Amino acid sequence: MEITRRDLFKGSAALAFAGAIGPVSSASDDPLPSWNDGPAKKAILDFVHATVTQSSPTFVPVGRRVATFDQDGTLWVEHPMYTQVVYCLERVPVVVKTKPELANVEPFKTVLSGNRDAMAKLTMDDLFKILGATLTGMPVDQFEAEAKEWLDHARDARWKRPYTELTYLPMIEVLNYMRANGYKTYIATGGGQDFVRVYSDKTYCIPPEQIVGTAGGTSYGYDKNGKPFLTKEPKLLLNDNNAGKPEGIHLMIGRRPFAAFGNSTGDRQMLEYTKAGDGDRLAMLLLHDDGNREYAYGPATGLPDTKVGTFTQALYDEAKAKGWIVISMKNDWKRVFA
Amino acid sequence: MEITRRDLFKGSAALAFAGAIGPVSSASDDPLPSWNDGPAKKAILDFVHATVTQSSPTFVPVGRRVATFDQDGTLWVEHPMYTQVVYCLERVPVVVKTKPELANVEPFKTVLSGNRDAMAKLTMDDLFKILGATLTGMPVDQFEAEAKEWLDHARDARWKRPYTELTYLPMIEVLNYMRANGYKTYIATGGGQDFVRVYSDKTYCIPPEQIVGTAGGTSYGYDKNGKPFLTKEPKLLLNDNNAGKPEGIHLMIGRRPFAAFGNSTGDRQMLEYTKAGDGDRLAMLLLHDDGNREYAYGPATGLPDTKVGTFTQALYDEAKAKGWIVISMKNDWKRVFA
Repeated sequence: MEITRRDLFKGSAALAFAGAIGPVSSASDDPLPSWNDGPAKKAILDFVHATVTQSSPTFVPVGRRVATFDQDGTLWVEHPMYTQVVYCLERVPVVVKTKPELANVEPFKTVLSGNRDAMAKLTMDDLFKILGATLTGMPVDQFEAEAKEWLDHARDARWKRPYTELTYLPMIEVLNYMRANGYKTYIATGGGQDFVRVYSDKTYCIPPEQIVGTAGGTSYGYDKNGKPFLTKEPKLLLNDNNAGKPEGIHLMIGRRPFAAFGNSTGDRQMLEYTKAGDGDRLAMLLLHDDGNREYAYGPATGLPDTKVGTFTQALYDEAKAKGWIVISMKNDWKRVFA
Repeated sequence: MEITRRDLFKGSAALAFAGAIGPVSSASDDPLPSWNDGPAKKAILDFVHATVTQSSPTFVPVGRRVATFDQDGTLWVEHPMYTQVVYCLERVPVVVKTKPELANVEPFKTVLSGNRDAMAKLTMDDLFKILGATLTGMPVDQFEAEAKEWLDHARDARWKRPYTELTYLPMIEVLNYMRANGYKTYIATGGGQDFVRVYSDKTYCIPPEQIVGTAGGTSYGYDKNGKPFLTKEPKLLLNDNNAGKPEGIHLMIGRRPFAAFGNSTGDRQMLEYTKAGDGDRLAMLLLHDDGNREYAYGPATGLPDTKVGTFTQALYDEAKAKGWIVISMKNDWKRVFA
């Protein structure tokens, strides 16, 4: 039985057979058509071959095939600002309408002013106040409906397209290719778990239960008709960044990934933890070095780093020293977006 | 295409087709052979039929089919003591060997004495100290290896069998039946998430990532060779009991179950939350009324309740009032164990 490229995009149908037939790849039916031939593409194909071929010394049974993907800057655009932060800033006027007392309180006052220079000077502490006010204090169903509504209408300023269309086609191919080979794909994001869950299934074919993200607590209560519901609380349960990524992966998945993909220092520990496992493990870092088709930032590009997606020289050096594969957006990808 | 009972026990192979062919059940091929005909069995069959038949007004797409199962007293024996508590008590001598200063400190002194009367008087606070000392402070891999080793050798006092063999055959049939019909099955347990993960795949065909349980934090660090590992910390992230069950389900799954099974007041909110969803929802409570084949306890049996698995009269009345189905172990089950 041959699994065609069309099948790859169905994922689950092919999954049932992947364990039996071995890796999905052949010269005539390239599973990664948006990738140029090179060490990055080869590393992915070799890894899958080595872990799903029954006779391989590093064969991994289907149930243990776990791959984790950072989202912002790894699966979709993170520049010049994380999509979720844009969402929170744009929600401020709505929140102030229900709580007018916030209009004259910082940082809400600055956000309402629309003064971009002033907004650029907001501190992390200010940002946390904004995230708290816009992401918590409402029922989970209401949050989901509001975020969905916003995502349906919001547009990226440069491409004039919905944010959910600004995913990287080569990475979507990797997700599909790994799923077709029996890998369960997870997002491990510093972003909000509930925010990413709103669109992950439609955008990445990754269901809500496979999103590991920064998570707050909820509280169980009843509406006036006695109907139970959950309220999002401003209580941090998991900060899914840096060391929080492997900790979150343990909490939500309970096993070490065999493959992990990231693009910043926030992914460092996830890649390190993945690589430290037995057998064949794949750790990859996406370098944004393509200012024409997307953005170029980070010391390894010779360009100044930005506030988001910190890909430091130290991280680049560590990747090279430890056998993590650096993906060059410019050289490794034929196309960036679908 | 017909899915036979043998297929049901494979689960995943059948799953891919379940959405297309509708419910798996026919007179000649009973998917629940250990159940007597009656309202409980009928409720399960009717619910599956109503939610997986494409033409049904309450049809649920495959990806949204989530079913959650309490463990202790619902999937396996909880009497006279939760298996995990037995584990923790039996680990005390090992812990004291590495920390001799605990030998003369309560509650460890009492546990070491082996005096059952004194142990029966330990408070919840004492118990938390024992859980903390035996479940935390070690690498996650070490905990997993130790718990696995214990489970391989420990035997229940009454049946002289491994605890993992004391699962209820009728409930294993329900798990298989629901999976064969495209339901993703989860355990939602007040027990330790990491403890249940050790044996859940082998015992219930439920992988570690589908265990929602009481969970503590971990911390990321390095051994003397620079190899990263996670340590189990005595920091409670989620108390997966009572209101904590729907809260844990939201954290780990991100959607409301369509079916939930429990046996005690600790499952009350999970059943209530499940039943409050739109469409057809199934909430079931197992009543332990079979002192011959297992145990009988709880007011609804006319027998005194026990310390574990509190099935109160109020819970029984609520179940009847709200359309939750009570399963009588004595009357609804042909067999209890495999």
